[in-house]
Amino acid sequence: MPPIRPTKSILPRDLGTALAALRERAPLVQCLTNIVVANFTANVLLAAGASPAMVDNPAEAESFAGIAGGVLINLGTPYPDTTEAMAAAIRGAEANHTAWVLDPVAVGALRWRTSLAHQFLRGHQPSIVRGNASEILALAGGAGGKGVESLASVEQAHGAAATLAAAHHTVVAVSGAVDYLTDGTRSVRIANGHLYLTRITGSGCALGGLMAGFAAVVDDALCAAAAATATLTVAADIAAKRARGPGSFAVALLDSLCDLTPGALVDTVCLP
Amino acid sequence: MPPIRPTKSILPRDLGTALAALRERAPLVQCLTNIVVANFTANVLLAAGASPAMVDNPAEAESFAGIAGGVLINLGTPYPDTTEAMAAAIRGAEANHTAWVLDPVAVGALRWRTSLAHQFLRGHQPSIVRGNASEILALAGGAGGKGVESLASVEQAHGAAATLAAAHHTVVAVSGAVDYLTDGTRSVRIANGHLYLTRITGSGCALGGLMAGFAAVVDDALCAAAAATATLTVAADIAAKRARGPGSFAVALLDSLCDLTPGALVDTVCLP
Amino acid sequence: MPPIRPTKSILPRDLGTALAALRERAPLVQCLTNIVVANFTANVLLAAGASPAMVDNPAEAESFAGIAGGVLINLGTPYPDTTEAMAAAIRGAEANHTAWVLDPVAVGALRWRTSLAHQFLRGHQPSIVRGNASEILALAGGAGGKGVESLASVEQAHGAAATLAAAHHTVVAVSGAVDYLTDGTRSVRIANGHLYLTRITGSGCALGGLMAGFAAVVDDALCAAAAATATLTVAADIAAKRARGPGSFAVALLDSLCDLTPGALVDTVCLP
Repeated sequence: MPPIRPTKSILPRDLGTALAALRERAPLVQCLTNIVVANFTANVLLAAGASPAMVDNPAEAESFAGIAGGVLINLGTPYPDTTEAMAAAIRGAEANHTAWVLDPVAVGALRWRTSLAHQFLRGHQPSIVRGNASEILALAGGAGGKGVESLASVEQAHGAAATLAAAHHTVVAVSGAVDYLTDGTRSVRIANGHLYLTRITGSGCALGGLMAGFAAVVDDALCAAAAATATLTVAADIAAKRARGPGSFAVALLDSLCDLTPGALVDTVCLP
Repeated sequence: MPPIRPTKSILPRDLGTALAALRERAPLVQCLTNIVVANFTANVLLAAGASPAMVDNPAEAESFAGIAGGVLINLGTPYPDTTEAMAAAIRGAEANHTAWVLDPVAVGALRWRTSLAHQFLRGHQPSIVRGNASEILALAGGAGGKGVESLASVEQAHGAAATLAAAHHTVVAVSGAVDYLTDGTRSVRIANGHLYLTRITGSGCALGGLMAGFAAVVDDALCAAAAATATLTVAADIAAKRARGPGSFAVALLDSLCDLTPGALVDTVCLP
Repeated sequence: MPPIRPTKSILPRDLGTALAALRERAPLVQCLTNIVVANFTANVLLAAGASPAMVDNPAEAESFAGIAGGVLINLGTPYPDTTEAMAAAIRGAEANHTAWVLDPVAVGALRWRTSLAHQFLRGHQPSIVRGNASEILALAGGAGGKGVESLASVEQAHGAAATLAAAHHTVVAVSGAVDYLTDGTRSVRIANGHLYLTRITGSGCALGGLMAGFAAVVDDALCAAAAATATLTVAADIAAKRARGPGSFAVALLDSLCDLTPGALVDTVCLP
């Protein structure tokens, strides 16, 4: 495998263009996600300019994935009926060339969802896989984490991310203090964000939803994943300045997502 | 069918009286609603003065609908077991003359829930049906919307609302910039509210819950639906002035719902 | 049964030590809870310093209860699959000596969950049972409440709490204006908290989650339950001062939970 180098093909202005496109087109994002973060994910998508729809039942998931601009499959609280819906949504997405994102929450730490994630990947091709370092390591065949938190650093998952991306022709996004995103050939690092993102539930899950939204309006999935990451983490930088703690941070994050202009995103994003 | 004219039989003071009754009696509102908005709906009901209980399993839904003052059936994220509970709750509500509200979320855009909504209406009589214009058009036999958002204007749904109301002896409430409510004979328009209501998830769903609460304490279902609409949208007017964006708006909406007095409601509601 | 007297064996400094331990060890808390409060419960646990994971499916609940430090079983919105997961989590917790907490939401008012609660207690031994007065009275064999709210006062449930605690070798925590906690021999009363806690959904449910977190790091379950109660209600006292209503109170509660130091807890808790 050739070495993967930081790309200069994704520039701050591409992320600004992506955010402008999200606002312009307000893509319909079908979220099959967990009971903990469904509300926050919907509010993040609305604040950013997308149009969320949580269609997660087996009877409607497949056909709706043909209408949606992007689909999120999040394994946070899987149940027999919702995982059936996830499989159906993936079928519907791939049959209709709808971008879809896999968020393998707590994969590695738990057996059933680990097998579900592998089943959702086998023979399928998500546009983006987003997780923390432990989840990406586990998905690539390594050891798992502790519950929903990562025990590994983002740097430790760079190799696993590249391997996974190449194997599935997908983009892998590893969330952490400095986010790392790769399509197996190119890579991007994004250094925005605030520790408060780890003190509220659902920031990672909402980021997966945003990625599905951006993937609906941007052809280059690496750019879509980077634009989602930059949008959320730059908004978090702004929100943290207004916050007194995690509660007011979550509120301010929605406000700042709504306020964030493409120009401010371009000026503030840090791609080291 | 005789022409439907704006009624002067529902006056601002009736809405104030209804809010006072809600506060006085704190009705128990059984909500069978979706995973996205269950928390916000409960908080809206509590802030307004009602007592929410999300009893949405097949084993308990029917008997609880006999105890509850009002029942909300919301089709946002239906599953096999919760839709079974919905059918049971409707049976329990009708057997016990408990007011119930149908919120046909995304009906028209999605086949299964469209058939569920028709099944819940056939031979049954909700006190109130609440939806956006696309949902009401679809329920009355027209075309559907895009996901959970309306593609049609409230004005385009006036006729469908009246037809639906007359056919099912119910009140139909069409939510939008200017809300339109009719029982097939009388109609009311309410012009309060703020665009922020469309930038947070669950404002429409919570409104359905409030309608079930008001229908528990007000005999005239048109007045109950109008009181719920006025309460939420007048509170939204106040909240919007304190908000920096959608996140702080949602927080301020709960605060202003709690603060809103019947007198302030009477003084501020706009019935054009 | 010997008389139960207020104990002086649990002192403010023990509660401060418990909070320091929670922060130090960040226990993994498995929550099998309801769709209304899952988000708030996770955010309360994160703000306080614990690590929530809502693993509530039948395939993973049992094994995860062996990894978790504490397990919450909350009967707010039970479904066939999640109650199967609850039974599995209890098995996993007891096999691995993991502390678990039962929150019998609305037990007494509803038949199915009442039988579930009795089934979860029979032959099992939760570390803590937390409920309002009506729920504790019902669980001990008395009459039920109205939906999720208590019709009885905490004082009326003192005897039932002691009986229940002695019968199941557990700690029973009765939430109310003055919380009452007993292990059947010792008892503690905690007089902090604010009426706003009753105007938002999920404060009681989140308290159950906090108890599971403290029980993971404190051997004495009565002290763990008291530390959780003190932490939430002292934080509520602080939050109420910053709040304009229930919406801003819930936000400020998360902020103040995060800010609360063991020293401030010791200084502010009121154990009458």
